[in-house]
Amino acid sequence: MRDNELRVVVIGAGFGGLEAARKLAKLPVRVILIDRKNHHTFQPLLYQVATAGISPGEIAAPIRWILRGRKNVEVLLGEVVGFDLQRRVVKLSVAEICYDYLIVAAGATHSYFGHDEWEPWAPGLKSIEDALEIRRRVLLPFELAERQAADGKPGMDLNFVIVGAGPTGVELAGTLAEITRQVLRDEFASIDPRRTRIVLLEGGPRVLPAYAPDLSQSAVRQLQKLGVEVRTSAMVTRIDPGVVWIGEERLPAAVVLWAAGVAASPLGKKLGASVDRAGRVLVNADLSLPEHPEVFVIGDLASLKDKHGNLLPGVAPVAMQEGRYVAKLIAGDLRKLPRKNFHYFDKGSLATIGRAAAVAQIGKIHISGYFAWLAWLFIHIMFLIGFRNRLIVLIQWAWSYLTYERGVRLITGDMTLPGWTEKKDREAEPALRN
Amino acid sequence: MRDNELRVVVIGAGFGGLEAARKLAKLPVRVILIDRKNHHTFQPLLYQVATAGISPGEIAAPIRWILRGRKNVEVLLGEVVGFDLQRRVVKLSVAEICYDYLIVAAGATHSYFGHDEWEPWAPGLKSIEDALEIRRRVLLPFELAERQAADGKPGMDLNFVIVGAGPTGVELAGTLAEITRQVLRDEFASIDPRRTRIVLLEGGPRVLPAYAPDLSQSAVRQLQKLGVEVRTSAMVTRIDPGVVWIGEERLPAAVVLWAAGVAASPLGKKLGASVDRAGRVLVNADLSLPEHPEVFVIGDLASLKDKHGNLLPGVAPVAMQEGRYVAKLIAGDLRKLPRKNFHYFDKGSLATIGRAAAVAQIGKIHISGYFAWLAWLFIHIMFLIGFRNRLIVLIQWAWSYLTYERGVRLITGDMTLPGWTEKKDREAEPALRN
Repeated sequence: MRDNELRVVVIGAGFGGLEAARKLAKLPVRVILIDRKNHHTFQPLLYQVATAGISPGEIAAPIRWILRGRKNVEVLLGEVVGFDLQRRVVKLSVAEICYDYLIVAAGATHSYFGHDEWEPWAPGLKSIEDALEIRRRVLLPFELAERQAADGKPGMDLNFVIVGAGPTGVELAGTLAEITRQVLRDEFASIDPRRTRIVLLEGGPRVLPAYAPDLSQSAVRQLQKLGVEVRTSAMVTRIDPGVVWIGEERLPAAVVLWAAGVAASPLGKKLGASVDRAGRVLVNADLSLPEHPEVFVIGDLASLKDKHGNLLPGVAPVAMQEGRYVAKLIAGDLRKLPRKNFHYFDKGSLATIGRAAAVAQIGKIHISGYFAWLAWLFIHIMFLIGFRNRLIVLIQWAWSYLTYERGVRLITGDMTLPGWTEKKDREAEPALRN
Repeated sequence: MRDNELRVVVIGAGFGGLEAARKLAKLPVRVILIDRKNHHTFQPLLYQVATAGISPGEIAAPIRWILRGRKNVEVLLGEVVGFDLQRRVVKLSVAEICYDYLIVAAGATHSYFGHDEWEPWAPGLKSIEDALEIRRRVLLPFELAERQAADGKPGMDLNFVIVGAGPTGVELAGTLAEITRQVLRDEFASIDPRRTRIVLLEGGPRVLPAYAPDLSQSAVRQLQKLGVEVRTSAMVTRIDPGVVWIGEERLPAAVVLWAAGVAASPLGKKLGASVDRAGRVLVNADLSLPEHPEVFVIGDLASLKDKHGNLLPGVAPVAMQEGRYVAKLIAGDLRKLPRKNFHYFDKGSLATIGRAAAVAQIGKIHISGYFAWLAWLFIHIMFLIGFRNRLIVLIQWAWSYLTYERGVRLITGDMTLPGWTEKKDREAEPALRN
């Protein structure tokens, strides 16, 4: 390996880091991409894995496979534990990697607003592992309730509570409604999945707060049509096994899913720079760190405002544009060109709600329902990485659209649920003949 | 529900139990199918999940989805903990289910010949969870070795040891060879996956002992061509983290996979009947339990000899024919017909080795290589449950056949390996610039 090459270390293979690595691969630099997973996860479709619609392998691809054939790119599996910005070194748990340029794209995770003790009862959705845990919690209650009912005991109430009505909460609630009303409808002998209550809680005054008010209203109507109870200005104050508290109100919940807060990766703080309340790093207009023009922060971990003073949202297009921008900026540095500021070009936003239900906001154009959903479907399939995945996801979706089937309804792991009380009745031992 | 119906309880939704339930569904009986998973697993393709070729969802389908639309069939998720044959009751951990007829099709698992302490270092392959753990162990070593090499340290030797050269061991060894020689070939900067040693150990004198000697020889040739070292009469005496012992010989092993012993489900013993050395229940010629004409044992859990005195093998066709037979026998009982003995009709055996490599034994006809593999491919795709799965698996395979790609190379869960020593060198702290 050539020793005189400039070394660019990229941390995180999400949308931002991957895009940066791809563009940097075309420059005369050595790129080292570090991630703690071996795969890129297409996060916008994680909720489909969590709701048994598609397999993990269809929305995740090995990072080194995505970047194969790029001889100046090296992919390392590793957990970053810290930095030494003076020595220009990234510290892994078992090694140190030095850099000339550093791009930190470590993303965000869900935040419980200081209540991390809620996590076991209310898992969030950020990784493949999270999605499989949620899938388990979504499917298992019906099996347990059926068994209880077959045993002649009064079944637990089947109600799902989703906390947070951003895009993820809305997707989960809508899809759960679809599953209970359609997919599972005729498959149980003793329970009726259609009676499942699905409650979407939002602490703020409206769902999808990043969208225009008319689209929030449309989303509520579409959710209600699917069978979701939507409650806004409902701030969760406590979560126990089987119960969600809204102030004094006790809401029973067989399953709680968390889609509320976002916290930036703890790596932000480890850079030693200023961070905002959510842990996002306050970056310069060229996405570099104050005092460190060779260190950039992009994606969900960066805190940058647009010309109207609004914080750029934590979505894939922002991260990708930032990744491309930094790669171009480094190319300019190599040619001693002056740096230009980053500007986000907003192509619009789409949020899906369920089958043929979505909202879209493209500049001043607001669309709801079937056409918004078609647009969402088209864009997400096109963006999925790798032709093979795209084709299979397309077939899966076409199939499940036609048949109302969901093909990946596997429960793996533990067969118990937190907060689920199975009433044993060994004394009576009623041999079943119901 | 009608109270006068005959209740047939089936335990286990493998090939035997599922086939019995399907046939029983056509009779005027109530069928209760109990399994501890919510899904049927197509075990012959588990090794494809373990080697990142296909997703779990493509070889597993929810039991209640498979049996949907059959109004007299009830599916229960539950772990059977015992029986009371006098009271005709099946005991679950949380309920009791009574029966008029009982079909126990609980299958088999892997056996460590009394050395269960080997399991953490040498996982076996019986469930989706097992397959994902093996996938993790197959993919992770390359990532760890790459990181070590990038850190300038001598990499661990990458060698896989597969214990047991039955069909599963042969499949795993052949596919691992394919992965290391083709799939991962060009994706690493610092290591060469093609140098991975793959050793297949067999305690007996030949691989695929259930096949004719000429096919065993052909299998060895095909394995060697793929790059597998085959060692017969190599009895493993001990397994430690990172080491397999063959008597006094110490064989280093980054990863050990167990494909050797088979033990019948512990439910066999709980029936109180006589069992053979592997825990299989000695059944009457009509598959019923001595003294209990209303209790049947089928599939891998049953011990029955054919007219030549050979034990029927633990394969899907035997289990399926037994399931059909028992359903028919119960139909005959309802009409007071005399019982006939079970006879297995052997349509032949197929074992795959790798890409375009397999052996087939159909009566006196022995086939090896490409045509045996085509036959294997055709039969396995046709048998896969559900059209949707079949189509997607076909596309996946066609794609990976053409491109040498494996699409499900996800490492999930823990990012460490037992027995893998990562040499920390914090004293020296050599900042990388290699």
